[in-house]
Amino acid sequence: MERIRIGLIGAGTVGSGVLEILKKESAAYREKYGLDLILSSVSTRTPDKIKKELLNFPNCKLESDFHKIISDPEIDMVLELVGGTDVAYTIVSESLKNGKTVITANKALLSQRGEELFSLAREKGLEIGMEASVAGAIPVIRSIKTGLGSDSFLSLYGILNGTTNFILSKMELEHLDYSEALRIAQELGFAEKDPTFDVEGIDTAHKISILGSLAFSQKIPLQSVQIEGITKISRLDIQFAGELGYRIKLLGLVRKISDQLEARVQPVMIPVKHPFANIMNEMNAIYYQTAYAGPGMFVGKGAGSLPTASSVVSDILYYGARKNKGLAPEKNLFPPASVSEANGSLVRYYLRFTTVDLPGVLSEISKVLGDHGVSISSVRQNETEKEPVEVVVITHPATEENIKKSLKIIDGLSLIRHASVAIRLEDKL
Amino acid sequence: MERIRIGLIGAGTVGSGVLEILKKESAAYREKYGLDLILSSVSTRTPDKIKKELLNFPNCKLESDFHKIISDPEIDMVLELVGGTDVAYTIVSESLKNGKTVITANKALLSQRGEELFSLAREKGLEIGMEASVAGAIPVIRSIKTGLGSDSFLSLYGILNGTTNFILSKMELEHLDYSEALRIAQELGFAEKDPTFDVEGIDTAHKISILGSLAFSQKIPLQSVQIEGITKISRLDIQFAGELGYRIKLLGLVRKISDQLEARVQPVMIPVKHPFANIMNEMNAIYYQTAYAGPGMFVGKGAGSLPTASSVVSDILYYGARKNKGLAPEKNLFPPASVSEANGSLVRYYLRFTTVDLPGVLSEISKVLGDHGVSISSVRQNETEKEPVEVVVITHPATEENIKKSLKIIDGLSLIRHASVAIRLEDKL
Repeated sequence: MERIRIGLIGAGTVGSGVLEILKKESAAYREKYGLDLILSSVSTRTPDKIKKELLNFPNCKLESDFHKIISDPEIDMVLELVGGTDVAYTIVSESLKNGKTVITANKALLSQRGEELFSLAREKGLEIGMEASVAGAIPVIRSIKTGLGSDSFLSLYGILNGTTNFILSKMELEHLDYSEALRIAQELGFAEKDPTFDVEGIDTAHKISILGSLAFSQKIPLQSVQIEGITKISRLDIQFAGELGYRIKLLGLVRKISDQLEARVQPVMIPVKHPFANIMNEMNAIYYQTAYAGPGMFVGKGAGSLPTASSVVSDILYYGARKNKGLAPEKNLFPPASVSEANGSLVRYYLRFTTVDLPGVLSEISKVLGDHGVSISSVRQNETEKEPVEVVVITHPATEENIKKSLKIIDGLSLIRHASVAIRLEDKL
Repeated sequence: MERIRIGLIGAGTVGSGVLEILKKESAAYREKYGLDLILSSVSTRTPDKIKKELLNFPNCKLESDFHKIISDPEIDMVLELVGGTDVAYTIVSESLKNGKTVITANKALLSQRGEELFSLAREKGLEIGMEASVAGAIPVIRSIKTGLGSDSFLSLYGILNGTTNFILSKMELEHLDYSEALRIAQELGFAEKDPTFDVEGIDTAHKISILGSLAFSQKIPLQSVQIEGITKISRLDIQFAGELGYRIKLLGLVRKISDQLEARVQPVMIPVKHPFANIMNEMNAIYYQTAYAGPGMFVGKGAGSLPTASSVVSDILYYGARKNKGLAPEKNLFPPASVSEANGSLVRYYLRFTTVDLPGVLSEISKVLGDHGVSISSVRQNETEKEPVEVVVITHPATEENIKKSLKIIDGLSLIRHASVAIRLEDKL
């Protein structure tokens, strides 16, 4: 029986889930894996909350200072579950320097400082488990590293933020405006009081930079990800998308375009019959294309105490079993190479113009588009008695640059009432 | 650099895919994993087909007798890709006895003799890779063993047979009868000339017995799986399912019902808005519920040369890296415990009766159902001028036994024109 002595730092939502799973499953793990997981010490800012739970671990010390855990020679493995990037960086780097395997659920830390942390781990011959850092309960990181380890990725698309997926689902299913759906998400605990980090796509950007770096064996710095959130998506666009056979999703994506990588976070339209379009509410999913195995998809819960903790504990088991076995370091851990950006990809666009109802409106719009090499595939103008009129244009494949230039000119025309809307169609998922 | 010398036995669809991937990716594997995969020898019944491909492996021997490969002390790892259960059994068992890691894609062999083979492997301190044996390119086996290794499965549902999923999709999308859709599947190479193995659910049963054994840490013998194929599904039932908001899929399923396991292969109705219902044509998927991480789903290709080969090669890399590292054997490899069957589960049923259009038909049917404790949730009878009339009944939850008893009596009534149809509704996916 192999013993793994664990130090847990941070006992909030995820940490308390880890305590619950360890309590219930440790006996089963001894039998199934021959691994004896021993919780040696815990440090948390809110010790009162877990005092009762710790009664289930009679030999576990409650430390007020986390430094005691990361320097304790008895500890084999440190769980960094505090979040943030300052204290967390100290915990991970000092633990590695002291010879400990580290498990973390910290996407911000990995996205911003993963390269140096993995470089330090390699130097020390140690490993960092990070399954819980992206897409909570979905075993996507292990799958990229091992199950799909023989393959070569062409594209990776993620619905990685439960808050925004919940808001978009509510807007569609209950015909709500963005602000109404956000309010419901906040009431139900799916959105923070200040939702910026989620709704502006920053959380998704952290996650896609991590997954993309692993999948493409090429570091994708957060700064190289083009980010657009969902705050400008209107009920109208969601309705028109539905009529056109599409559904709007906030995607993080990384894909190869003639040997360059494109990395984005953006609301796009996906064909509604595609299984990826049916990932609703707070669920997460990752869809991929590869040279051999793909296309394929993983679906599951992106957050929550027990779902995320299940990934932390699967890392404890996996890296616990590998510890001190002289295994080669795992594939693709934030390699130092830097991303090359390719943002000139050609895609079809959905454009919506809010206009006065005058003869000649469409010809003015199409002239501007045509001047920029954007040709029109179809147009629909809802019949209405009242102004303004919504004109929806589906383009043939065009570059983002040409779409943006066209819209800048069109939005300056006197016949346009509001800023026009442009959303990419992901037809080729 | 660690060297893995590989013997390949069987160079048909999957084996030739392995050759192609090794040719293209071996250099990348050396760099990414520090593993040098060397194809040492190949044995195949059709050597002419691969002679050209073997030019890419100048030091590889072509053996006419596979026994030379399994007894060659130079070989570290044997790939058993011949299929069937006789020669394949010899290859796997003798290779293990000779100290070699084995990778196999053989679901029939594992389903029927996995227990003894894994017991032999344990005895020898060796491992058997089997990622390609179920759901081709989907890394579901690795995910059950490692990514979800901390979790406790409650249910596992699989769309695991591309042939039947293709036929059901065609029937729905092109409004075809079973026999017409089967003919198209045969023309396109998605179905064999003799499709029995697929359409009667036997292939799915092999696969679910393997996945279920792994997920539930309990051997599920093929004989304990209740099997029903798709040959009795009619275009009418597919149409009615659609009108009711469902889609018919052939599922393999294993689930816990109060500490017993239920194992089945059966066409069931799934709510059409569920992502699992949107797995169309030849695609495969696995949907699961667990104590902590679930629900979740994996989607991908279930067959094909390169997709299946990608899983074989991911096993080569994974087990190659683990070889001789003194790692504890992996979780859940066909444990000797045997399945307990639980088939008394309560589910809702779709029933279709083809009747004469007489007053009193419905009261006769509902009386028989009521006598067996089956209560009716809703009834629809299509308006028609002509006989026979199709009466569709959705029941409240009932046992399969009571449904079968009721139908036996109802089908004996003079007002019934054809054998009645009963399909389970999987509402709770």
